[in-house]
Amino acid sequence: MVESYHPLRIFSGMAHPELAAEVAALLHVPLGKSTTRRMPDSETHVMLDEVVRDQDIFLIQPCGEPVNDHLVETLLYLDAFRRASAHSVSVVMPYFPYARQERMAKGREAISARVVANMLELQGARRVIYVDIHNRAVQGFFNIPVDPLSALPLLANYFRTPEFTDAAIVSPDVGRATLAGQYAELLNLPLVVMHKRRTSFTTTETTHVVGDIEGRRPIIIDDVMAGGSVLKQVDALYDAGAAPGACLAITHPVLLPTALARLDADDRIEQLVVTNTLPVPPHKRHPKLVVLSIAPLLADIIYRIYRGDSISSQLVLS
Amino acid sequence: MVESYHPLRIFSGMAHPELAAEVAALLHVPLGKSTTRRMPDSETHVMLDEVVRDQDIFLIQPCGEPVNDHLVETLLYLDAFRRASAHSVSVVMPYFPYARQERMAKGREAISARVVANMLELQGARRVIYVDIHNRAVQGFFNIPVDPLSALPLLANYFRTPEFTDAAIVSPDVGRATLAGQYAELLNLPLVVMHKRRTSFTTTETTHVVGDIEGRRPIIIDDVMAGGSVLKQVDALYDAGAAPGACLAITHPVLLPTALARLDADDRIEQLVVTNTLPVPPHKRHPKLVVLSIAPLLADIIYRIYRGDSISSQLVLS
Amino acid sequence: MVESYHPLRIFSGMAHPELAAEVAALLHVPLGKSTTRRMPDSETHVMLDEVVRDQDIFLIQPCGEPVNDHLVETLLYLDAFRRASAHSVSVVMPYFPYARQERMAKGREAISARVVANMLELQGARRVIYVDIHNRAVQGFFNIPVDPLSALPLLANYFRTPEFTDAAIVSPDVGRATLAGQYAELLNLPLVVMHKRRTSFTTTETTHVVGDIEGRRPIIIDDVMAGGSVLKQVDALYDAGAAPGACLAITHPVLLPTALARLDADDRIEQLVVTNTLPVPPHKRHPKLVVLSIAPLLADIIYRIYRGDSISSQLVLS
Amino acid sequence: MVESYHPLRIFSGMAHPELAAEVAALLHVPLGKSTTRRMPDSETHVMLDEVVRDQDIFLIQPCGEPVNDHLVETLLYLDAFRRASAHSVSVVMPYFPYARQERMAKGREAISARVVANMLELQGARRVIYVDIHNRAVQGFFNIPVDPLSALPLLANYFRTPEFTDAAIVSPDVGRATLAGQYAELLNLPLVVMHKRRTSFTTTETTHVVGDIEGRRPIIIDDVMAGGSVLKQVDALYDAGAAPGACLAITHPVLLPTALARLDADDRIEQLVVTNTLPVPPHKRHPKLVVLSIAPLLADIIYRIYRGDSISSQLVLS
Amino acid sequence: MVESYHPLRIFSGMAHPELAAEVAALLHVPLGKSTTRRMPDSETHVMLDEVVRDQDIFLIQPCGEPVNDHLVETLLYLDAFRRASAHSVSVVMPYFPYARQERMAKGREAISARVVANMLELQGARRVIYVDIHNRAVQGFFNIPVDPLSALPLLANYFRTPEFTDAAIVSPDVGRATLAGQYAELLNLPLVVMHKRRTSFTTTETTHVVGDIEGRRPIIIDDVMAGGSVLKQVDALYDAGAAPGACLAITHPVLLPTALARLDADDRIEQLVVTNTLPVPPHKRHPKLVVLSIAPLLADIIYRIYRGDSISSQLVLS
Amino acid sequence: MVESYHPLRIFSGMAHPELAAEVAALLHVPLGKSTTRRMPDSETHVMLDEVVRDQDIFLIQPCGEPVNDHLVETLLYLDAFRRASAHSVSVVMPYFPYARQERMAKGREAISARVVANMLELQGARRVIYVDIHNRAVQGFFNIPVDPLSALPLLANYFRTPEFTDAAIVSPDVGRATLAGQYAELLNLPLVVMHKRRTSFTTTETTHVVGDIEGRRPIIIDDVMAGGSVLKQVDALYDAGAAPGACLAITHPVLLPTALARLDADDRIEQLVVTNTLPVPPHKRHPKLVVLSIAPLLADIIYRIYRGDSISSQLVLS
Repeated sequence: MVESYHPLRIFSGMAHPELAAEVAALLHVPLGKSTTRRMPDSETHVMLDEVVRDQDIFLIQPCGEPVNDHLVETLLYLDAFRRASAHSVSVVMPYFPYARQERMAKGREAISARVVANMLELQGARRVIYVDIHNRAVQGFFNIPVDPLSALPLLANYFRTPEFTDAAIVSPDVGRATLAGQYAELLNLPLVVMHKRRTSFTTTETTHVVGDIEGRRPIIIDDVMAGGSVLKQVDALYDAGAAPGACLAITHPVLLPTALARLDADDRIEQLVVTNTLPVPPHKRHPKLVVLSIAPLLADIIYRIYRGDSISSQLVLS
Repeated sequence: MVESYHPLRIFSGMAHPELAAEVAALLHVPLGKSTTRRMPDSETHVMLDEVVRDQDIFLIQPCGEPVNDHLVETLLYLDAFRRASAHSVSVVMPYFPYARQERMAKGREAISARVVANMLELQGARRVIYVDIHNRAVQGFFNIPVDPLSALPLLANYFRTPEFTDAAIVSPDVGRATLAGQYAELLNLPLVVMHKRRTSFTTTETTHVVGDIEGRRPIIIDDVMAGGSVLKQVDALYDAGAAPGACLAITHPVLLPTALARLDADDRIEQLVVTNTLPVPPHKRHPKLVVLSIAPLLADIIYRIYRGDSISSQLVLS
Repeated sequence: MVESYHPLRIFSGMAHPELAAEVAALLHVPLGKSTTRRMPDSETHVMLDEVVRDQDIFLIQPCGEPVNDHLVETLLYLDAFRRASAHSVSVVMPYFPYARQERMAKGREAISARVVANMLELQGARRVIYVDIHNRAVQGFFNIPVDPLSALPLLANYFRTPEFTDAAIVSPDVGRATLAGQYAELLNLPLVVMHKRRTSFTTTETTHVVGDIEGRRPIIIDDVMAGGSVLKQVDALYDAGAAPGACLAITHPVLLPTALARLDADDRIEQLVVTNTLPVPPHKRHPKLVVLSIAPLLADIIYRIYRGDSISSQLVLS
Repeated sequence: MVESYHPLRIFSGMAHPELAAEVAALLHVPLGKSTTRRMPDSETHVMLDEVVRDQDIFLIQPCGEPVNDHLVETLLYLDAFRRASAHSVSVVMPYFPYARQERMAKGREAISARVVANMLELQGARRVIYVDIHNRAVQGFFNIPVDPLSALPLLANYFRTPEFTDAAIVSPDVGRATLAGQYAELLNLPLVVMHKRRTSFTTTETTHVVGDIEGRRPIIIDDVMAGGSVLKQVDALYDAGAAPGACLAITHPVLLPTALARLDADDRIEQLVVTNTLPVPPHKRHPKLVVLSIAPLLADIIYRIYRGDSISSQLVLS
Repeated sequence: MVESYHPLRIFSGMAHPELAAEVAALLHVPLGKSTTRRMPDSETHVMLDEVVRDQDIFLIQPCGEPVNDHLVETLLYLDAFRRASAHSVSVVMPYFPYARQERMAKGREAISARVVANMLELQGARRVIYVDIHNRAVQGFFNIPVDPLSALPLLANYFRTPEFTDAAIVSPDVGRATLAGQYAELLNLPLVVMHKRRTSFTTTETTHVVGDIEGRRPIIIDDVMAGGSVLKQVDALYDAGAAPGACLAITHPVLLPTALARLDADDRIEQLVVTNTLPVPPHKRHPKLVVLSIAPLLADIIYRIYRGDSISSQLVLS
Repeated sequence: MVESYHPLRIFSGMAHPELAAEVAALLHVPLGKSTTRRMPDSETHVMLDEVVRDQDIFLIQPCGEPVNDHLVETLLYLDAFRRASAHSVSVVMPYFPYARQERMAKGREAISARVVANMLELQGARRVIYVDIHNRAVQGFFNIPVDPLSALPLLANYFRTPEFTDAAIVSPDVGRATLAGQYAELLNLPLVVMHKRRTSFTTTETTHVVGDIEGRRPIIIDDVMAGGSVLKQVDALYDAGAAPGACLAITHPVLLPTALARLDADDRIEQLVVTNTLPVPPHKRHPKLVVLSIAPLLADIIYRIYRGDSISSQLVLS
């Protein structure tokens, strides 16, 4: 085991200072001093308020809303760290922006997640760490080391109680079947896959429920909840005979107003379990919401990286 | 619509000259003259036997077995084309090598598909064209244009006959559920997802069949058949009551000896429908094998690219 | 003179569609069809709605407020154009973002204008065109061609009337003295330089007026008006005996609310003459504001570039 | 504070070995051993005469006359250091070549300062240090750290004596007004700006004196004195009533023969105060010349960089 | 002398594990644990079985037959090491592949050795070490440090016995004359150069013997023996009166079957002295073959590099 | 065959305007208008005096003395051409600078020829053309196309007269044996190789003559004559019985004063035949000098490149 002689520093942009503070506290290091200003003309200005020369920096910046501001801020910090001669900068983006624009879906689009990767590499990021990304192959958008973490053990653990022994894991669409399969295996529960499609004769999209949900309590899993369209699919589950008390296990709580409204409106949904990869401000603190902290996982991985310990046991693989 | 003033040329490496010849014939252009030699010490030597200056080259080279020889040959051709001042080289790799090594599966591995992408870009490929890749996000491994084609319409069309009206589309694992969903939608057939897993109490992997296969004829889909492990899963389908006459629709016929042996041995399997993205030499021409030609699709896309026509309708998207 | 065989296309992002339309109309070409969506979670999604293969694209996108959204949108468009095989993309940014962060001003900052340049080059911009940038050396932040245009002739021309024969050109600080000198030479008017400083004995910043403003009507020049701090300096000019009817000639109308309020409040200021490098929405249309269109200059330069004519006579040089 | 475990070495090219020796002596390290040969055919050959593996090298090489030889020598040293596995090479160029070709001045030129920056980065420079560059934005020509030092405090300090209390700081043209303003603020003296221009009616360039020089002793400032054209402008100052005993404070003593001749011929000029960023050989040691050593500033900054101390207090900012 | 704080690790690919083990043993370090699998479909899969973070890796991989497999394996290892955050990876390729494709020999070919260099640099090799390469300028194909070692002292030393005092060093063609000259100087023996050519009147290639071989025992030198065509030239030497007992001193024992057959058949050839830069499996262990180990040289150079000692005395220079 | 629609332009730097003019005349195109100034402080300033947008530029600039000035001038021209939007710039360097620093000869040196290649590629050269380079592998220092021309046919042709039927081709050292062999084959003359060495017992270098020169007139060949040390070797040839009337065939006439003096002093040398790859000013026009023009070869190759004809027959290969 090798210990770096470059001091470890945790910095935070404006995206999620609470999470950065929580990680720093767990690592017993003070948060690095820096200042981000949003200028009146909407430009961002960053300033490092202490020496970083030859230090190993971990910048914690999950790029939630407003995404572009947080992203550009990250790039400016990378530039400032490089010009101030930091030894290395690891970008900790528990929520990686543009993760769902990881391929052309309709043609003549950007592969925006690659644009993000290009920019991070160009500006000198030495390593990127993220949690539960939509497509695992985004790792290959980078030539630098990427640590793909997962909240899966954390979230799955929440459901290891007697009241969920008769539940079923539900993938909200065919693309999430792999993640759902991992939950199913970990919790030893049956798998159900929802499958939206249009037939050649109709233009209406219908949802098929593949697998047996009858009499079982659904645990719907996904990587992110934004507008909450997944909540609209609950009807199909209950049409297929699902038991009451549906839960959701979702890593990233984007939680747009429509999602909160639907959560509110639907009695069949009991709980939405998320992590704090993104800030959950008071107006998003819905009574059905359970927030588990991702900070211990991040702190553990940073410590292992810094110490040179093995991290592969912490990564989401296979 | 813009027509390039750079002449169009089709070249072939050693990987699949028949396919290249078929494409060239469809485009009414002669195959470019070049020579690849495998030297006695196993090095590869490539030589262009005609002027290529200012030409738009399409090099057709699906990287099947021996993969590394075909891959290095491709890189050498790219170098030769660049040094001979070709205007552009589009690499047509109907079978993209290392496509299943597109992420770290267990930690401390290479992301080999990215290594391939790095090498192709570095050596000056202007564009890459492939068919039915394992993970669509491989497109983002490149900054150059990538055209992800699909044999899905070609293969699906084969099954549009009365004898398959009571079939079901079977995804051999959770990771193929998206592709299976597209088949199901196109053919308006039900979807079944197989799901292998170990429980926490056992070490034996068991296969779960999610969805209803009873009395239905299975059409198992996948992107590639190599060793044929998918054929071992047929048991689970028949345990679940599948109707006789299982078929497989698989784009890339790697077809290792074990696959052919299993195909031979299992009476419940009626047909294996593939394309010729890879050569199918006589010893792989099993009686149950149906080979559909991918050449018309490739010729069409090359013509559209060269002419400046829209190609997005030909791409596999969403 | 060479005429490109690559068709010319003008595209616009969300930053300033009116300007793009005006330029396209002057060039007698239709605006390219594309769609930018701001997603509910604040991500940006861009889509090209027509074929661009082998075309010479000019993307008109002055990056005013919200800067980071317009900047990221530009990068996504560059990615989409590249992946859709455009022949070249020239980025027309009449207002170049982060132009005043072109050096470290206090240490341990980003050189944000270089970060912008890095990103544009990385994403494949072939050429950049801007108007009246704060520091001419930003041109050297790029290795690609940059056309630095100036609104100086347009604005100066406005003041070529008898009522300004006894005016003086005022540089609001020592850093703008070069630009002010160019106005003074062009209009044959005397030069006055304002010079803010702190002495070693005081902490109050005082403004010195260098040169003779007495009895002369001030024309204060600058590249951009944001918060309008320049308007606070008018006191020093009138303390030094300036004649009534001060005017301002300023290229980029950022015009934050404070600027508009000051413009309103100060009777000594008669006119603020600007260009439309940035949109001037109704709520910024102050009665004292005169807006000159930059579109003819942009159209002329695009036409010359596309035709291969000389453009150096149009550039801001020396 | 972090101390590097990579040994510190100071090397010198042929540009200014005396300065390198002075810096090395102040740092108590021996000068690194290397040999540069100018071959009879005018090629340059460099050779490192000691091991440099894993060392932190500072190569001191102000690129004065002959500029191209010193520049290419620098690039060859960078190559030699890289191939000999130095840990890092910081290029200390107190006089940065081609600094005044930092933009296109007339069109269709090179931005030569960027070419220099490109070459230094490409050949692996880890950091660049220079003194009083013509345009501060040259810092942004690099993506690596740049430390822009200034001789301003050193030179200004020289004039902090009673005999200069009634002096005025003179900017020789509008482009130097910012530097002059800094002198004026530091020494609490009034500012005067000279402004050469042609009117639209004449072709003769005339020099305007903006501000009040009457009865005041001029201290003319600039970054570099080459041919000494600034000395021709003294007439305009004395026409405007300047007091006798003009002085000049100029960082870089290029001092071409015409400059020395003018210095000799003009009785109104009392002193030319410069630094030794460039060698001042005996034939340039004019009696009116005062040479202040820049070595302590360079030694201080190198020590701080090597030690990981803050250097921002030493940089020229704002 | 500087000692790295990054631990030293020796890894081996599949190319020559015996050599790697021998080097590791000489350095008293265990061989790093890793696994290469050749998949049934001919793809290669590499896996590091221990932590390598912050370590200095030396990967020993002479790229003999099958060249492309060993080469791609090397690239995959580089990717795996980089993604696993090794501090540096030095590629030790005692036998550098494609070394004889280092220029275009007939036009419109690849410069394959440069393709190899491109790929190694792109995938992050920090340093390359090879032995007796065909053209010394291949060093310049890299921008990273390259250590060109030579087996010349090792092989020459073998011939420092009384029985070779009347020998002559024979270059098999004009291109090897430089290497032959070094042998001749080292052993103080006369030089003979063979020179194959066609005259303008004939199409038959004849071999000219330049220099005096009469009555002298030939020691034919070369960098590599593949097919053994050099053995066919012995006739010309004996026609010119060479003494019996010809020997060959050749670094790299590719030793194709034809070479072994010729060795067998020709009584005039007494010994073929080679090194183990490539494996010499039992079927190549011809009675006339003498194999000298290159491992001590490699171990010495690795130790010096790691310790920061001078290595130039070990390199093949001039 | 493809004809470019980009106009062809020939430009010249300061290195050899006569050659450029000769080439332009042969191609019936006017020389492009540009200006290079050497500033009094020794900096170089380049300016293009006509539009070059979308043109195919050939810049003719053999980098003879002063090498570094010509080299930097070339880089500045490349920058100016790129910023002025030339379509491509081919650098025609009949004499490639630093060609003999193509490897480390003694350790811890630069590979200067690679530094030159790096800079040319970085600054955007699309193609490089040179004549008779010291080591053919320099071609691999580039990833762009390189056309290695040879004056061999031109020079050899000069000696195809009856008076040279009894001559011998002499390689001045073992490193030139390949080139000498090509002359020998082309002229059907015997080959002699000179071989300088030190024995282990003496420190005096002695020259061995390998092969038979007795009674034959020597034609000594080499790529470049700089100081003329080759002329000192004539003694050894005459000691070995050479016939009177030695000639030299050498491509590049660097011709330092010592070379001219030796030429003057040695009666045994009859002629020195060179080309005009470098200027031969009047003071170098020695009576024994014969200068053959390389311009027809350059014009032919430029025409073929521009037309898209095959050039491989013109290249020096094998």
